[in-house]
Amino acid sequence: MGKTEPRTLPGFMELLPNEQILFDQMKQKIENSYKTFGFLPIDTPIIEFSEVLLAKAGGETEKQIYRFTKGDTDLSLRFDLTVPLAKYVAKNYGNLSFPFRRYQIGKVYRGERAQKGRYREFYQCDIDIIGDGELDIINDAELPAVIYSTIKKLGFENFTIKINNRKILNGLYESIGQKENSVAIMRIIDKLDKIGEEAVKEELLKIDIPTNTINTIIEFIKIEGTIDEKIEKLKNLKIENEIFLKGVEELEEVVKNIRLFGVPENNFTVDLTIARGLDYYTGTVYETFLNEYRELGSICSGGRYENLAENYTDKKLPGVGISIGLTRLFFKLNELNLIKADKKSISNIIIIPMTENKTMPLKLAMELRNLGINTEIYLSDKKLKAKMKYADKLEIPYVIVIGDNEIECKKIKLKNMKTGEETEIEFNAEKIAELII
Amino acid sequence: MGKTEPRTLPGFMELLPNEQILFDQMKQKIENSYKTFGFLPIDTPIIEFSEVLLAKAGGETEKQIYRFTKGDTDLSLRFDLTVPLAKYVAKNYGNLSFPFRRYQIGKVYRGERAQKGRYREFYQCDIDIIGDGELDIINDAELPAVIYSTIKKLGFENFTIKINNRKILNGLYESIGQKENSVAIMRIIDKLDKIGEEAVKEELLKIDIPTNTINTIIEFIKIEGTIDEKIEKLKNLKIENEIFLKGVEELEEVVKNIRLFGVPENNFTVDLTIARGLDYYTGTVYETFLNEYRELGSICSGGRYENLAENYTDKKLPGVGISIGLTRLFFKLNELNLIKADKKSISNIIIIPMTENKTMPLKLAMELRNLGINTEIYLSDKKLKAKMKYADKLEIPYVIVIGDNEIECKKIKLKNMKTGEETEIEFNAEKIAELII
Repeated sequence: MGKTEPRTLPGFMELLPNEQILFDQMKQKIENSYKTFGFLPIDTPIIEFSEVLLAKAGGETEKQIYRFTKGDTDLSLRFDLTVPLAKYVAKNYGNLSFPFRRYQIGKVYRGERAQKGRYREFYQCDIDIIGDGELDIINDAELPAVIYSTIKKLGFENFTIKINNRKILNGLYESIGQKENSVAIMRIIDKLDKIGEEAVKEELLKIDIPTNTINTIIEFIKIEGTIDEKIEKLKNLKIENEIFLKGVEELEEVVKNIRLFGVPENNFTVDLTIARGLDYYTGTVYETFLNEYRELGSICSGGRYENLAENYTDKKLPGVGISIGLTRLFFKLNELNLIKADKKSISNIIIIPMTENKTMPLKLAMELRNLGINTEIYLSDKKLKAKMKYADKLEIPYVIVIGDNEIECKKIKLKNMKTGEETEIEFNAEKIAELII
Repeated sequence: MGKTEPRTLPGFMELLPNEQILFDQMKQKIENSYKTFGFLPIDTPIIEFSEVLLAKAGGETEKQIYRFTKGDTDLSLRFDLTVPLAKYVAKNYGNLSFPFRRYQIGKVYRGERAQKGRYREFYQCDIDIIGDGELDIINDAELPAVIYSTIKKLGFENFTIKINNRKILNGLYESIGQKENSVAIMRIIDKLDKIGEEAVKEELLKIDIPTNTINTIIEFIKIEGTIDEKIEKLKNLKIENEIFLKGVEELEEVVKNIRLFGVPENNFTVDLTIARGLDYYTGTVYETFLNEYRELGSICSGGRYENLAENYTDKKLPGVGISIGLTRLFFKLNELNLIKADKKSISNIIIIPMTENKTMPLKLAMELRNLGINTEIYLSDKKLKAKMKYADKLEIPYVIVIGDNEIECKKIKLKNMKTGEETEIEFNAEKIAELII
């Protein structure tokens, strides 16, 4: 019979078990961190009505979408977790308690051009806080606390959460007569880190911003100093624009509260260049960088938006949220050798029977499992050498070989595979469990 | 602006947070149970090349598939986790240790006719043990031990795992000259529970099975008694067919080892009517029923197959596996009120600041979170009544209200919302944690 080549689609991550164990650990750490902040879980379908999913989308997003018909129904795969959240909140408005704090971890789909480190199927790990009508600015300070706790739980110390406020930028542009161009300008400024000052100037010229105005913009985004100095300098600009002043006030309030949430000074800063490409952010915005690995780009981003679900409901639902793109993060950290898939098994112990009578080996395995110890029992009829090779290859930490002799003496040897040390012990699951935890 | 109705597709489960918490708990219990048996995690894409996914499929499955093109590529959504496993094992053969024991929990897609309790997107929770060339029969006995542990962890006691062996059926049909019809016959017998003996007889007549042969078949599948009596009766049939005898021998061996794995006698039985519809099962087969709720159908099924990945590789890869259809199970248990979504929050405690100065409330919240206590802090500027209403509505077990008075006295009151009891205590996260766990 002809064989089909067992291929996986390009741009779709599929890991070997040791990598999968590590990936799952990271996902679990993120989820646990989100839970300690009391966020509620939701799980929305991967497929939605195209009409619903694309109520707002346009441009690049729409081109990348996986869209198809089944029967007469026009369907699309979700490309983020924010649009499904908007649908969910609008749909279930009456059954939710506000502020509605939810987390969602799931796969999303974007048909991007295939290239290394770009995925078409990838996990997003999102949290959002949605207010009913209004949402106090202090919520904007809790999210950096979540980012801080989460990135620390992932094992990193040297990272910076960068904070800005879109109102400051919008107000500035309004005050210099560039309100119409503000989205375009912010998109360009957003690239400062990537392309440098000169290229930013050139791009601004290309969209017909006058040179003196460009200089003002550049001066502004190059405001330096400590967080408090930056805020002071913003105030000293004496820009009498209402939106600008509101933005500075919000930023100051957010910074104050981030400190109260206990985020250390060297893990966050104000960065006036950050705008976030998406134009639905209207206030606070965040990006997070590993300081020694800036090339990763932002590993956790988000911000405040005015109205989550305006495409579905008249209710005003302001919110603030963040997202970690776990698949890409995993790929990059792995590529940089910053994480190590060194666990090849989730078993704490393997029992290897070397006897016809499997009564005792099976009983012991089940007793250990009932104690919550991940336990394998080698069941194939092989020579001891082959069985030990399996245990070795999977690097299972402890091995117990049970032969007729062990059964007769009612004693077994618990072998620590790392140290080679052997401990003689009775057939007692609890005592064994104590030794291997 | 015109609003789009925030609809979710029919046949796609989308739960409110309290239901989602319960669903996630069940999923977690299943995963933890699979882990205690040392199964390794894998996570394959939801989208595959149609050529790969449909290498074998045909008939009903193919009609139900979500299939579409993106660019020039013919794509399909996975309809189970077994075909992706086959692809995975064939693709990664050289990097896996055999027997390869894997679990996978994920969504699969079938465009079934929409009806209550039928889902088009649903979670499957699978485990399989794959051998390289051969796989000892004792593995077929470990899976009922997994089923037993898992269903118990889900909170059920009164359930029966039914075991049979397809070789017994195949051998029987061969011995009565119905080898060609055996798959068709087994599909009909499989319906015995649903449609009854007379309807089975009629359907068998329709496919031209002679009446006396039908009687033999019915006599056979009606063999009754204890497990050991059934096996004895099978032996006493004196059918000298090699496949039949092999099947009886395997069944006897599996039963013996299920007992050694500690599965109680009243949680498993031999049921000679079970064949499982799918024709790729070649040996042991399983179904699991809640005895008081037979109408749920089998809640965990599976069996032994000769060759997992024959469409992708020349390697012979026999395996044995089981699957729990969690989405449908959740729906049915919920419908029967056998599970209760009574947790509306995952927070253990909520801190309610009633002061301008949020230093202490925020500090305490972060300290509790760092101790792993799921902690919310109410951040919107509302009256106490509105804040308490939020805590009440989400049924958060403990509440601490912090006002200026509390900050001055350095004492707070921890309120147990169930009993109404209040405990005065210092601002000490560890002491509070002790009280609420």
